[in-house]
Amino acid sequence: MDQTIRERILAEVDARFDEQVEFLAELTRHPSTRGHEQGAQAMMAEALAARGYEVDRWRIDVADIRDMPGFSPVIGDYDDAVNVVGAHRVRNPRGRSLILNGHIDVVPEGPHDMWDSPPYAPRVEGGWMYGRGAGDMKAGLAGNLFALDALRGAGLAPAADVFVQSVVEEECTGNGALACLQRGYRAEAALIPEPFAEALVSAQVGVLWLQVRLRGRPTHVAYAGTGANAIEAAVPLIAALHALEDRWNADEARHPGFAGVAHPLNLNIGRIEGGDWASSVPSWCVFDVRMGIYPGQDIAAARAEIEAVLHDAAQDNAFLRESLPEVICHGFRAEGYAVAEDESEAARAAVSALEGAHRAVTGGPLERVAITATTDARFFGLYAGIPALVYGPRAEAIHGFNERVELESMRRVTKATALFVAEWCGVEAV
Amino acid sequence: MDQTIRERILAEVDARFDEQVEFLAELTRHPSTRGHEQGAQAMMAEALAARGYEVDRWRIDVADIRDMPGFSPVIGDYDDAVNVVGAHRVRNPRGRSLILNGHIDVVPEGPHDMWDSPPYAPRVEGGWMYGRGAGDMKAGLAGNLFALDALRGAGLAPAADVFVQSVVEEECTGNGALACLQRGYRAEAALIPEPFAEALVSAQVGVLWLQVRLRGRPTHVAYAGTGANAIEAAVPLIAALHALEDRWNADEARHPGFAGVAHPLNLNIGRIEGGDWASSVPSWCVFDVRMGIYPGQDIAAARAEIEAVLHDAAQDNAFLRESLPEVICHGFRAEGYAVAEDESEAARAAVSALEGAHRAVTGGPLERVAITATTDARFFGLYAGIPALVYGPRAEAIHGFNERVELESMRRVTKATALFVAEWCGVEAV
Repeated sequence: MDQTIRERILAEVDARFDEQVEFLAELTRHPSTRGHEQGAQAMMAEALAARGYEVDRWRIDVADIRDMPGFSPVIGDYDDAVNVVGAHRVRNPRGRSLILNGHIDVVPEGPHDMWDSPPYAPRVEGGWMYGRGAGDMKAGLAGNLFALDALRGAGLAPAADVFVQSVVEEECTGNGALACLQRGYRAEAALIPEPFAEALVSAQVGVLWLQVRLRGRPTHVAYAGTGANAIEAAVPLIAALHALEDRWNADEARHPGFAGVAHPLNLNIGRIEGGDWASSVPSWCVFDVRMGIYPGQDIAAARAEIEAVLHDAAQDNAFLRESLPEVICHGFRAEGYAVAEDESEAARAAVSALEGAHRAVTGGPLERVAITATTDARFFGLYAGIPALVYGPRAEAIHGFNERVELESMRRVTKATALFVAEWCGVEAV
Repeated sequence: MDQTIRERILAEVDARFDEQVEFLAELTRHPSTRGHEQGAQAMMAEALAARGYEVDRWRIDVADIRDMPGFSPVIGDYDDAVNVVGAHRVRNPRGRSLILNGHIDVVPEGPHDMWDSPPYAPRVEGGWMYGRGAGDMKAGLAGNLFALDALRGAGLAPAADVFVQSVVEEECTGNGALACLQRGYRAEAALIPEPFAEALVSAQVGVLWLQVRLRGRPTHVAYAGTGANAIEAAVPLIAALHALEDRWNADEARHPGFAGVAHPLNLNIGRIEGGDWASSVPSWCVFDVRMGIYPGQDIAAARAEIEAVLHDAAQDNAFLRESLPEVICHGFRAEGYAVAEDESEAARAAVSALEGAHRAVTGGPLERVAITATTDARFFGLYAGIPALVYGPRAEAIHGFNERVELESMRRVTKATALFVAEWCGVEAV
């Protein structure tokens, strides 16, 4: 790319960076937890329409996607699940098409009193913006949009189709990204600016969500010995799951892409609920498990192993032995994915283009990171043959209190994204 | 008492026993869990009024009772807490006055699919009535009412004041019975037909309810190692509470009234709730503890010991050490009570009168039982100098699924109650 064009593009990112920060703040003000993304999606649709993109906004229909590979089971319908895609279509493309993807859903913010300031009243301090979703991943969504704005500001347009996607359900199933595939969106590469500190995600784990349901035998606590406490019955089951976690994380069990990662597969007991009354031996307990798996690890086999571990542990409990824990799956049923294993020419070229863009902005090499979380990249990479690059700004405490994103990092990623688009898609004068 | 009178009274219980069973079924149809007793209380008030008792029906005001000994702290107000008392007042009493007490509140029924038939659709099978509250303690309330009906059927009335009380809050605080004291109701003895299988309760434990609140450090589960899982942090705290339970149940720590009881003081983890999202390390967990204490055991000291145990156990957790578990008390703050230790003449006489009534009905001696639960008896005995006899029908699975009460046992208890009233209060012709 011509050095002058590059500098014009970078200057255009700087020129509207204050506006971008304000856009990010506005987007972060929407408490777009799962089921409540409509306000934020309306803002995204409006922003795309105002820029002249062709906007596609649709409610996901489970029936359309449930038989597709990568689908994760979901409870209830999707009346409240709306995807937004803005399309820049080129009649005679001279470059390679691109999907710029991001998710609009955020995870629950937890007790507000544990935040230093309200989670949906974003504030900037010391160069960081604080707020639930600011990092994961509204800064990425803002970056996608403003990277394209910078091109336009420089009098340029991508010389190939670009689809700007704002999807729901990333944090629980990925069915939002899957629905984009079902809708027919395809491109020669995808970029997802998830907040991994300006490194390229070389591999990501898969994730399973399971709900374990225990029964107990309730009695008046006066006769507690004759009952079977369903809450306390959970304790050895959780210990057994941790033992499985240890086995899967052992060196000999590892996927090579995670050789250098301290603890690739994390088990999390993320929710628990049980019992009705302090003075009754609880008759039920339900806990939610999140477990990581490696790329290539078979989901059905993993699930069966988890279930076997739970049933084995139940043998030590006289009541549970007769009333085995029930394992329900809804939410993540996500395979692992390693773009580093994609040996296609497209993958090689996309990574190389991103390396160039990153170096042009930062002056340094593009780091690789194998992450212990999942992203929507798997849909593009595993089920549509689209190499998916995960590369986004530095954020901290994502899913925690005082989540924050570094604004200068968002600036750099926006610049790198703009240069990557220009390189990958080519540019033409507006 | 004259043998003919006695037989007339017993025959009158038999004569209306079908009606009594129907009354019990109707009362059990009311799902009178805490906060939802109004329908059942209306039925009690109507039944008392129809029989000509002077009915007092009032909303409990926390302000009236909060400074009284025996008060248990409560969350929120008591807008929905209504007591009912029916009074039989005698201008020139020739006998001893009596309180016939029972509680209308029932504990939550738990998942309905674990009941063989719906908990609030009582059914009779094999001589037992099934339903939440049938045993604990609507059979007792029916017994109180129909015992007095039998006297009247025999052309007799108690020759002293009798107060028939239907109170709320027995299952969580006892503040309903306390409010009856505050309202001025006093008598020379009290009878509470709680379902302990036709035995006299010689001693009952006290009960503390505590809520333990834990914080955690949430993160994305991808970095689970850097978080502090508030749910899993509960596990060693619960173990430490069980160790305390073991110490308190050791022979050398026992109250002598519980020498023959296998395990007098039961710890129960009755409810738990924590976390918001399977893939976030949970930042909070709350669990409800019920712990028994002995008669004479100081409540404040017991609570302090429990709290110290929790704080000690927290020292092993790097996060909890800095963010100690919070212990909140609402609900039971109940002292133990042993009528067997009441050396007053009134207590001796009341027990003796009940022994006579029991023998007249059953032909056998009155068994004693030290119970591992609390009852409202403590208010009368500890705070008003009224010996309180707990003596009621045989029930099973109280607080459990398929709770049931034996109908022939209710018949015998109703008969014994009628004879006890006649003996204690004396009778006069209507």
